[in-house]
Amino acid sequence: MSSATGTRFRVTTFGESHGRAVGAVVDGCPARLALREADIQAQLDRRRPGGTALGSARREEDRVVLLSGVEDGLTLGGPIALMIENRDQRPGDYRDWRNVPRPSHADFTYQAKYGIRAASGGGRASARETVGRVAAGAIAETFLAERHGIEIVAWVAAVGPVEAPDLTQANVTRSLVDERPVRCPDADAAARMTAAVEAARAEGDSLGGIVTAVCRHVPAGWGEPVFGKMEACLAAAMLSIPAAKGFELGSGFQGARMRGSEHNDAFVAKGDTLGTATNRSGGVQGGITNGEPIVFRVAFKPTATISREQRTVDFDGKPVVLKAGGRHDPCVLPRAVPVVEGMAAIVLADAALLAGEPMGRDFGAR
Amino acid sequence: MSSATGTRFRVTTFGESHGRAVGAVVDGCPARLALREADIQAQLDRRRPGGTALGSARREEDRVVLLSGVEDGLTLGGPIALMIENRDQRPGDYRDWRNVPRPSHADFTYQAKYGIRAASGGGRASARETVGRVAAGAIAETFLAERHGIEIVAWVAAVGPVEAPDLTQANVTRSLVDERPVRCPDADAAARMTAAVEAARAEGDSLGGIVTAVCRHVPAGWGEPVFGKMEACLAAAMLSIPAAKGFELGSGFQGARMRGSEHNDAFVAKGDTLGTATNRSGGVQGGITNGEPIVFRVAFKPTATISREQRTVDFDGKPVVLKAGGRHDPCVLPRAVPVVEGMAAIVLADAALLAGEPMGRDFGAR
Amino acid sequence: MSSATGTRFRVTTFGESHGRAVGAVVDGCPARLALREADIQAQLDRRRPGGTALGSARREEDRVVLLSGVEDGLTLGGPIALMIENRDQRPGDYRDWRNVPRPSHADFTYQAKYGIRAASGGGRASARETVGRVAAGAIAETFLAERHGIEIVAWVAAVGPVEAPDLTQANVTRSLVDERPVRCPDADAAARMTAAVEAARAEGDSLGGIVTAVCRHVPAGWGEPVFGKMEACLAAAMLSIPAAKGFELGSGFQGARMRGSEHNDAFVAKGDTLGTATNRSGGVQGGITNGEPIVFRVAFKPTATISREQRTVDFDGKPVVLKAGGRHDPCVLPRAVPVVEGMAAIVLADAALLAGEPMGRDFGAR
Amino acid sequence: MSSATGTRFRVTTFGESHGRAVGAVVDGCPARLALREADIQAQLDRRRPGGTALGSARREEDRVVLLSGVEDGLTLGGPIALMIENRDQRPGDYRDWRNVPRPSHADFTYQAKYGIRAASGGGRASARETVGRVAAGAIAETFLAERHGIEIVAWVAAVGPVEAPDLTQANVTRSLVDERPVRCPDADAAARMTAAVEAARAEGDSLGGIVTAVCRHVPAGWGEPVFGKMEACLAAAMLSIPAAKGFELGSGFQGARMRGSEHNDAFVAKGDTLGTATNRSGGVQGGITNGEPIVFRVAFKPTATISREQRTVDFDGKPVVLKAGGRHDPCVLPRAVPVVEGMAAIVLADAALLAGEPMGRDFGAR
Repeated sequence: MSSATGTRFRVTTFGESHGRAVGAVVDGCPARLALREADIQAQLDRRRPGGTALGSARREEDRVVLLSGVEDGLTLGGPIALMIENRDQRPGDYRDWRNVPRPSHADFTYQAKYGIRAASGGGRASARETVGRVAAGAIAETFLAERHGIEIVAWVAAVGPVEAPDLTQANVTRSLVDERPVRCPDADAAARMTAAVEAARAEGDSLGGIVTAVCRHVPAGWGEPVFGKMEACLAAAMLSIPAAKGFELGSGFQGARMRGSEHNDAFVAKGDTLGTATNRSGGVQGGITNGEPIVFRVAFKPTATISREQRTVDFDGKPVVLKAGGRHDPCVLPRAVPVVEGMAAIVLADAALLAGEPMGRDFGAR
Repeated sequence: MSSATGTRFRVTTFGESHGRAVGAVVDGCPARLALREADIQAQLDRRRPGGTALGSARREEDRVVLLSGVEDGLTLGGPIALMIENRDQRPGDYRDWRNVPRPSHADFTYQAKYGIRAASGGGRASARETVGRVAAGAIAETFLAERHGIEIVAWVAAVGPVEAPDLTQANVTRSLVDERPVRCPDADAAARMTAAVEAARAEGDSLGGIVTAVCRHVPAGWGEPVFGKMEACLAAAMLSIPAAKGFELGSGFQGARMRGSEHNDAFVAKGDTLGTATNRSGGVQGGITNGEPIVFRVAFKPTATISREQRTVDFDGKPVVLKAGGRHDPCVLPRAVPVVEGMAAIVLADAALLAGEPMGRDFGAR
Repeated sequence: MSSATGTRFRVTTFGESHGRAVGAVVDGCPARLALREADIQAQLDRRRPGGTALGSARREEDRVVLLSGVEDGLTLGGPIALMIENRDQRPGDYRDWRNVPRPSHADFTYQAKYGIRAASGGGRASARETVGRVAAGAIAETFLAERHGIEIVAWVAAVGPVEAPDLTQANVTRSLVDERPVRCPDADAAARMTAAVEAARAEGDSLGGIVTAVCRHVPAGWGEPVFGKMEACLAAAMLSIPAAKGFELGSGFQGARMRGSEHNDAFVAKGDTLGTATNRSGGVQGGITNGEPIVFRVAFKPTATISREQRTVDFDGKPVVLKAGGRHDPCVLPRAVPVVEGMAAIVLADAALLAGEPMGRDFGAR
Repeated sequence: MSSATGTRFRVTTFGESHGRAVGAVVDGCPARLALREADIQAQLDRRRPGGTALGSARREEDRVVLLSGVEDGLTLGGPIALMIENRDQRPGDYRDWRNVPRPSHADFTYQAKYGIRAASGGGRASARETVGRVAAGAIAETFLAERHGIEIVAWVAAVGPVEAPDLTQANVTRSLVDERPVRCPDADAAARMTAAVEAARAEGDSLGGIVTAVCRHVPAGWGEPVFGKMEACLAAAMLSIPAAKGFELGSGFQGARMRGSEHNDAFVAKGDTLGTATNRSGGVQGGITNGEPIVFRVAFKPTATISREQRTVDFDGKPVVLKAGGRHDPCVLPRAVPVVEGMAAIVLADAALLAGEPMGRDFGAR
């Protein structure tokens, strides 16, 4: 029952990497929202393997089909089901290694949990599952943009040891992000990242990295106290993405090194409300948004599938030298960008519906 | 409705920092578990303000009272309600600053969300809310220890810029952790941390830091795929703790800098099952535990309450120089240790009940 | 984890019949609602044993204490915890029959499920658990009355074979209901019901009956399609009350005997919206309220505890003749009235918060 | 977010009556269960319109396609998505009456809630939505039969005023139920029911009725206390079915007329456990199953769509005489049978997974 997330904007994904289809059901999307398959397709195309020179060799058209919930281009308020057929399945690629759990993959843990696992690829643990997230995220973004004017932009901030400068204060846009296949808006860093990816690919190796995301124009008052804090929901959403190993909001791990007098965000008057002079809080205080941009970073480990030889053991504990076939990305970071955006949108859409109308900003005396 | 967490092991906390009582209801705890108030009290005492020379001056006895769910020292299977009365309330400490939202506190965001907030202290956003978590976590730990032999140990790994060496491979115990008030098991680092805290206190300032936690003897197969991944649940739990800004599992942000060939954890035979030669995965693969220790780190920002003057504005946007009274910790890290342990225990107890009996470890051919 | 109900207005009850306290936590109640202990106490007093000449001999003061969530008479938006201490516990009453599962009680099933059960009384299965529901329901009613002008009135419509005439069209009020201990607003039926209860009591026997409830001024558009239908939520709420055996909305089982042409509720213009000429739908169509009063009935079985001898077997299967001590009501119906009202209020409060603001009643062309 | 039900066996349905497809996602179904499309198809065929001489004239092949979750005939433990394409859509049938909310349909309430509704048919409120329930229910039944030996049989117990004798003690089977199109196992009652349906059809009218269901071989200990009671879950499930107006367990409304001494189910020894001599409890005590058959009844109102003229008003409040076209069943009862079975199976599957392994039946002293 863990393939669903969200309370009011509820997303369920389905599908194995090499089965008939992957997809999602979005239940709770508000009615009368303008929504076309093309809105969803645009983000799917950004996630698609083979979309860039840097990606996996797997070719999927990834054509989304809306099965329900939309009529004449408007949402009806009921569940929006969507499906993307798997076409370029090559289960045979993995067949020879059936008895060897791939290191740092989910083969062993799924087998331990279920006593069975999908015959090839990663089943539900495959990055292909994120197709449903990106599609559902695109619906969430449509809602957030139309009803609240929110925009979410993510980019690659690090690939292996190559780090881009901090761009969270810059007005980075998606079109800027997409100017380069590596999806880093900084030209110099992008060049070095690309070189690092090519080097890793040449050596049959892989690289991890960091994605930074900014959510702009989120109103104050979203997020729920205690266990439903905005940062808790974002952290869960991000750590649910395959290969994610870390999350930090605002100042994050770096903030842990600072003193309170340096770290505190002083309030300043902004129009008829308050803002903060700095944003080390990352747009959230006490779990609730304060009107400043939400800023966070997600760490991804290097892709577990590499074509270099690996010494490991099979399910019976016998030593083997694994040399995996199959197609894989040397670095998932550029394709992780729309996944991070989609998951952020799903979290924010849920928060928007839970927040409801603000109770009134009675800032003064009680 | 966000004061509850967990699906089967369901914890609801209640209480404001300066109200009549704080507490929790634990619904779903298995029946026939030996449970005494003393088991809970032990962890509460570790969290208690004034428990160490380093803590806040607030004195609370924090005496837990079990209201339901336990009879003759055994759990009945129904909800366990527990309560800790607030005794040392001093709402007056905050009264003068009623119209000034404290920087990097939740005063502004609660007011924006609810149009009202607790008259003093942080209400639900106060660290005092964690009393309920620690008490509920102690119940979870009792279950995990008795039924599954699990032990959870956390410690302070960094205070401000002072970092302890990596001790995740050492067999750190709680009694070792508690040998020093700063709760860092490394003597040298502990001395430097203590000095840093004292220096910050002397200057009316505060420090953040990092807590590391290890969960040992967790069986393979816990955690649910996709959105219920173990690391997603842990990340949400940790980011829900007041002042937490970051979470990383296993290699975390450092792993993002590595190559796949360095990062992958090769499998090795361990008894009649498999283990891994290294543990960069942090005990979780594909969201499901693999039988290795779960290892994670949580970053905490410096305490927002400082006694140094701060330039900010009041709710009406007028500039003020805030000099807060009230009692506060210059560094919450030592007291965050039992909170981190408690939240980890709550996550693991829920995962244990969701996992149920293993389906059979049919490792070979399907 | 089943001691909680509701999605946004979330109620968790706790406490065994003979433990230290019973109570509830209400999480999700809107902020800035005027709420005093006296509002809750009034409904608790209506539920209290010994409140009427017809009730159990057990005497409980049932004094509610608010532990959190309310400050200076206003709700804060956080969880409202409340507690009622058990004072008149007499566990000894049941001790002799410890090895005999009482017929049509939950002794056997709790033992089968948990391998343990509360030493006396019904533990969580006791009607005493409904104290928490009534208290939480009173909070829900306060919200519904203040923010939506809703009123909920229930009464006893049948006791054993004695049935009152249909009063759902009459403007029955709570004060009218409370004029007679049996809580039936029809004088003649009330007299016969009272006689029936006294006769049953004299014979050491018990009676069941039916409670009717009407919820007035519920706006159109509450309730969620498919699985969250208003009638589904009400049915679950009512069948969760101890001793409830049936639920029907509007025409109910009687409607099953009618033809469509008789049963359909024609629409009529009512002010600037539509109403229906009849209300066989019971205020709900397709799971969503239509603005007419919600009308439903709940069937209760006769109290399982009787003082007459019963032939049964003990846990070892050996025949025994059980003659129960303990205190009991010959007929729970009058005391079930505030429980039904409270559960209805909890369902409606949740529906109100899920419905949010209406999307706009665009009745004409799309 | 209300198109999903269940906690561990989680079913989400999707699809409008005249959209592209209807279907369901079943998340949480145990792994390694033998499951073929044919198992699902069999129940869908029983629900299919045009399946009997008594049904609607709408012809749908209703061919189920499994999209995920099953490989080589075995479940994988992940979400099982399935889809049934809508083929025989005739939206034009309803177009002329676009501005008239059909009496006792959901046209008005959906419009009030969402400000939009599906252009034709009932959208999500249509009985066509139950296709997804029946398919999901068939998966649940497969699990319950294979792992627990449970069988669920429902039949038509009343059509309008025609009632069959009580058959809950008889060993009614599905093949016996299916011997007659009206799905009543009593030959005499079936004949009179059929005549009643034909008479109603001839007059352009419709009939309601009652479905009885029996669930056999359910072990003791399923169902959760307080709000997760078995009867509460069943009541919610049944009242969520379109046109359902009432639910009763065991003795139900009739039991409300009895005395405790008549109604109580005495315990008797049955093998190494206890059973009851009678089953007025309907297989459930205190919300938890006792090992006896679960027996319940569901009341359905007469179909709201009739071809007779109806005086009502349009959305603007103007009087009209409605004469509906479209295809409809004069009596949905026979087709409701597999829907009731499916919903019961979904409830039981969830209860099975929540119950987990019994804690041990420690019937004697504690």
